[in-house]
This record gives sequence, C-alpha cells and structure tokens, in this order.
Amino acid sequence: MKAQRFERIIASMKEQNIPQMIIADPYSIYYLTGTMIQPGERLLALYLNVNGNHKLVVNELFPQGANVDLPKVWYKDTDDGVALIADFVEKDKPMGIDKIWPAKFLLRLMELGGGSKFVNASPIVDYVRIVKDEEEQELMRKASLANDAVMEEIITYVGKGLTENELAAKLSEIYKAKGCDTVSFTPITAYGKGGADPHHETDDTKGKYGEGVVIDIGGLKDGYASDMTRTVFLGEVSERQREIYNIVLEANLRGIAAAKPGNRMCDVDNAARDYITEMGYGQYFTHRTGHSIGMECHEFGDVSAVNEDIIRPGQCFSVEPGIYLQEEGIGVRIEDLVLITEDGCEVLNKFTKELIVVPFEAE
Amino acid sequence: MKAQRFERIIASMKEQNIPQMIIADPYSIYYLTGTMIQPGERLLALYLNVNGNHKLVVNELFPQGANVDLPKVWYKDTDDGVALIADFVEKDKPMGIDKIWPAKFLLRLMELGGGSKFVNASPIVDYVRIVKDEEEQELMRKASLANDAVMEEIITYVGKGLTENELAAKLSEIYKAKGCDTVSFTPITAYGKGGADPHHETDDTKGKYGEGVVIDIGGLKDGYASDMTRTVFLGEVSERQREIYNIVLEANLRGIAAAKPGNRMCDVDNAARDYITEMGYGQYFTHRTGHSIGMECHEFGDVSAVNEDIIRPGQCFSVEPGIYLQEEGIGVRIEDLVLITEDGCEVLNKFTKELIVVPFEAE
Repeated sequence: MKAQRFERIIASMKEQNIPQMIIADPYSIYYLTGTMIQPGERLLALYLNVNGNHKLVVNELFPQGANVDLPKVWYKDTDDGVALIADFVEKDKPMGIDKIWPAKFLLRLMELGGGSKFVNASPIVDYVRIVKDEEEQELMRKASLANDAVMEEIITYVGKGLTENELAAKLSEIYKAKGCDTVSFTPITAYGKGGADPHHETDDTKGKYGEGVVIDIGGLKDGYASDMTRTVFLGEVSERQREIYNIVLEANLRGIAAAKPGNRMCDVDNAARDYITEMGYGQYFTHRTGHSIGMECHEFGDVSAVNEDIIRPGQCFSVEPGIYLQEEGIGVRIEDLVLITEDGCEVLNKFTKELIVVPFEAE
Repeated sequence: MKAQRFERIIASMKEQNIPQMIIADPYSIYYLTGTMIQPGERLLALYLNVNGNHKLVVNELFPQGANVDLPKVWYKDTDDGVALIADFVEKDKPMGIDKIWPAKFLLRLMELGGGSKFVNASPIVDYVRIVKDEEEQELMRKASLANDAVMEEIITYVGKGLTENELAAKLSEIYKAKGCDTVSFTPITAYGKGGADPHHETDDTKGKYGEGVVIDIGGLKDGYASDMTRTVFLGEVSERQREIYNIVLEANLRGIAAAKPGNRMCDVDNAARDYITEMGYGQYFTHRTGHSIGMECHEFGDVSAVNEDIIRPGQCFSVEPGIYLQEEGIGVRIEDLVLITEDGCEVLNKFTKELIVVPFEAE
C-alpha cells in the first residue's frame, strides 16, 4: 500500500467534493496498492471513501487480491458484483466513477441507486498520477537507461539487411537481455518511405543504401515505461536528409528548453512546432509533440497545442517532433523523455542525438 | 455493409422497445459494416435507429471509416465527440448503450440529455452475433481446419527439448505459414506440472520424459478464431495418465453429444461435468466447460452450469473439460469447437483425440 498516494487522492476528493469514488483502471489500482490485477472483462473496483472506508471488490479468480491491505469483497462469476458494491456505498451521496468503467457496470450501479449522482472522477487520479513521486522518478530513470542501451545495440543491426519484422524480433531479444519485461508498445523500425509515413506498420521491407531508419522504441522495466526515437542513415546521408535532421533536432531541443515548471504543456508543443513552421515544414509535422508516460507508455496529459495545463515538477513526458516528406521518402523523428525538475527538466535519454550514419553491409 | 445482420439487429431493437442505440464494440461494428476500426481510447460509435437514421461517429485519424456506407460524423481530437452525438439523437426516447462503452462517454451523453433513459442494450447484439450466419460458419470451418494443421505440426516439436516459450515462438511461425494472421490468444503449451495448473503461465520450462503436454492453441484466419486443446505424452504414458486421459475424453464426447438445438448451454456443461464427477474427479475440473467463439476467441455465451439459454443452430462454442491433479503433476484437457446444426452439431476440429505418445528426443 502506498500511503502517500492515497493521501494525495483523498485530499483531492475532498477538495472537489467527491465523497466516494470507484477506481477501475488496473494501473491506478496498482499505483495505489502495489498489486496488479488484470480482470479483463470482469469487475474490479477499488472503492475509496473520504472517511477511509475503502474496499477492494475482486473476483475470486484473482487470488493476488489478497495482497491488498484493505477490506476485500470477493465475488464469484455467478454473483452480481455490482450489487455487492451497491450494498456498502453511501447511496445518498455523489459517486465518482472511473472514466474507463464499462457501461454494463455503471448502468447497473445506477439502476441500484448506488449514489445520489454520478460524475467522472478520473481527473482526480489523473492529476495525482501525472506527478511522479521519488520512487517513480527513479524507476523512470532506470527504464530509460535500459532503453539507451537497447538503442545502442539495435542500431548495430539496422545496416545488416534485416527486414523491419526481423528487427522487431531482434528488439524483443535485446530488451529481455537488458532486463526489461516486455516492449512497452509495438516498436517502430521503419526504413525509408516507411519512416516518412507516420501511419506505417512494420512489415517485411528491407533497408536500402542511403535511406533513413526511424527507430521508435520503448520497454517496460520494473513496471515503468521508456520511449525514445532516433533516426539514423544507411551508408550515407544526403544534404537534404541532413537539413531535415538538423531542423528536427533543433525543434527537439527547443521543446526540451520549454519543458519547465510554470510553462504550459502547449508551450512545449509551440516551441517545437513554431521552429519547424518557421523553417517551412509546419505542414509536415503532423502529430502532437508528445505524451505523458509512466506505468503506461501513453498516460493522461498530452503535449499538444490545446493542453493549457501548467507543467509541474515530477511530470514526465516525451518531446518528439518529426518531419515526414512522403514524396521524397524522407522521415525524421527525434524523441526524448523529460522529467520536470524544480527549475527545468532532466532529459532521461542520454543516447546521442548527433547524426549517425551506420555502415551498410547488406547487398 | 451486411444488410441481413442490420435487419436482425433492428428487428430485435423493435421487439425490445429500444428505438435507438449506440454500438461501440469494434467487433460488433466490423460485424455490421465490414470495416474494422480499433479506436483505442478514442470515441467510436455506430448509432442505430429503428427508423433507419444510422450514423457512424469516427475520429479523422481512422480514414478507413470512409469505407462504411452510412452517413459519417467525423470529429477531431480537439472536438467533443459525444456532443456531436447528442446533437442528432432523439432526446425524448430511450437510448440503448453498448456494455463496453466507457463511463467517460456515457456520463457525458447523460449530462447532455442524449436520451430519456439509458439501458444496456448489448444483449440485442450479443444474441444476434451468437448465431453465426452461413458466411461466418464457413469462416469458422476454415479457421479450425488451419488449426488442425498447426496442431499436427506443433506436436512434432514437443518432444524435442524446446522450452515452453520456444514452443510458443515456433507456434507463431507455424500459424503464419498456415495462412493465419495471428494467434487468437496467448497459446498454452504446458509441460507436466504446468499443465496440471490451470493458471500456469508459459515459461522457460522444458519437458521431461513421461510428462504430459497440454497444447491449447488457436489462430485468427480471415478475421475468425479457432481454439483447440490436445494433451500428448512424452516418451511413454503411465496407466494413471491413461486413466485420466480416457475420463476427460469421454467427458468431451458427452459434452459434444449434448450440444444440440433445444438443449440448454448448461446441459453441455452438466453432461461433461457429471461424468467427471461420477468418476470421482469433479473437484479437479475447476473451470467452465467452454465458451462461445467467433471473431473473438471468447464471445458472449459461456458453457457453464448457470447459463440456461437454449442452444440454437448456428452457435459455435468450445467443449473443453479437463482434470488437473496438481500434486501428481498430471493435467489433461481435450477441447473441440462445435457448430450447432439443425439436429446436433458439427465438430470443427478433425484432429485425432486418440492418445498420442510422441518420441522424446531431448536429453
């Protein structure tokens, strides 16, 4: 049990007049209890009450629920689990609901009158989880340190004539060897035109001499995710490729410079985007500048033009501008994770951003 | 667009006085439109109205939405997609909701008054999808035919000293070679004690001489799933293993014999379970007898003691009794898929259920 995390959530519930709430997201439950339960389509609910009358409602199929140091309500597949919740809630008070809770449970709880009104209370958890505590910050550092090592190793393979799918398989091996549990998302290792298409799916393409390779990879280590992108070139780099690379690199650096407390999330997006636009490529930077990251690769809080939330110390997000010139077959993205400090940010990825040309050894 | 499937859904909506509903499950939308959109956390809604005023609400990030032959409501990440739905629904009439719809969307639609009341309308779709039409029946046959071929091939590897994880990797290759897109669930290839533990996760264990191997595998072919289990033995089989095998086999056959129109789903469970209980092993058959299957490996409608639904022609489900003697390290499960016909069922898996002892070639 993570007492301080509970305290932060309860304080926020009080502030927002949510006397009770149901948390259903397995990651949020893990965050608070240290126990991961992936219930699939089954009911899993952490009930929180500002008076401290917390409970975990969990199916008997998940015996690890016993590790959670709270009163448990165990149910079987043949039970109406939501009715068990309705039995102990405060029916005359508002009920906060997790944004991911499926309608089948919410409609049933409403039918049983399990609250005076129902509100999406996920922002309470989201704004607590977005600020990583010391323990999490250390885990994020270690995850990205491992990712740096993986990047260094995978780059030695990209010039060897492997297909994108073969590179992806190689990546799984390397992550495992570096002590990571699994890749945190489907890795992108896209050659040439594939790298110039942000929607490209890894396939059986092989790299060609002179092409770029976009390598967007991340792993899970001790429950925390990494995510980094580098773009390298096979055999040689053209002046055109170098020009685009340098623009993206400068955008990445400007985004990082804007990542500090007091600025807004959109300021990071603007800093990277404005430079690319200024250089004439604004229309080719087709996605947001980044996303928050933690236990999950994509967490609440994106780095986009519309997110005016003020950045706070402890936040962790990606800064990943890119330029995609599909007709020329040139795509460049450079991504680092940053961890916001008291007066700026720590860049978690130490792997070089100098332009790399790898030997091309395939025929 | 699948006109007959729409008609079946609309007829059921009329019968149940649901004048309008929102379908959110990507498989149900694929089932009706032939277009697969996996929106992740984003809003995707197929709005159906008994008057025919259907619409698809889809994010611009999923251009394949254009293939759906219905009026589209496109939205951007910066739009309030649910507000766009509230704009066109009949606010003074009940609204059916997909059971999987996340609370963040449902609570917002309620806030906007997008219906006179809200009900879980998933049973309408579930009871249509549970009865496979001719096209689907043919796809289910082909998927299981491929699975038979995969089973035949993987069995040649289980005596060769591979770890469970290595077998799993081999399986992926074989499915691909047999024309399957992907495995339909994490395959189980469990040696000895692992096979005797229904919660066992595939690991780096190697098989030993005289052990059983539970092989529970399935693939996706042309969008439809297969699922079959066989239990084979390494080098030799003991009398005790043979005894348990034969009991499970008879239970499998009795379950299949009960799989016919007019019987209830629970009758299939009872037929398999009663025999195992009669033979003294009831407490070691620790799971339901089966599950419905189609586009997804586990679909609505389980083969369990509490499901009293009457079986109808066109249904497809698994019959998979097992006995798990953890202390003895003996686990046996035998699983086939059945497709209900007018007067009985067609067993989709043709792979033999005779007891197989494979040569043990590892040291």
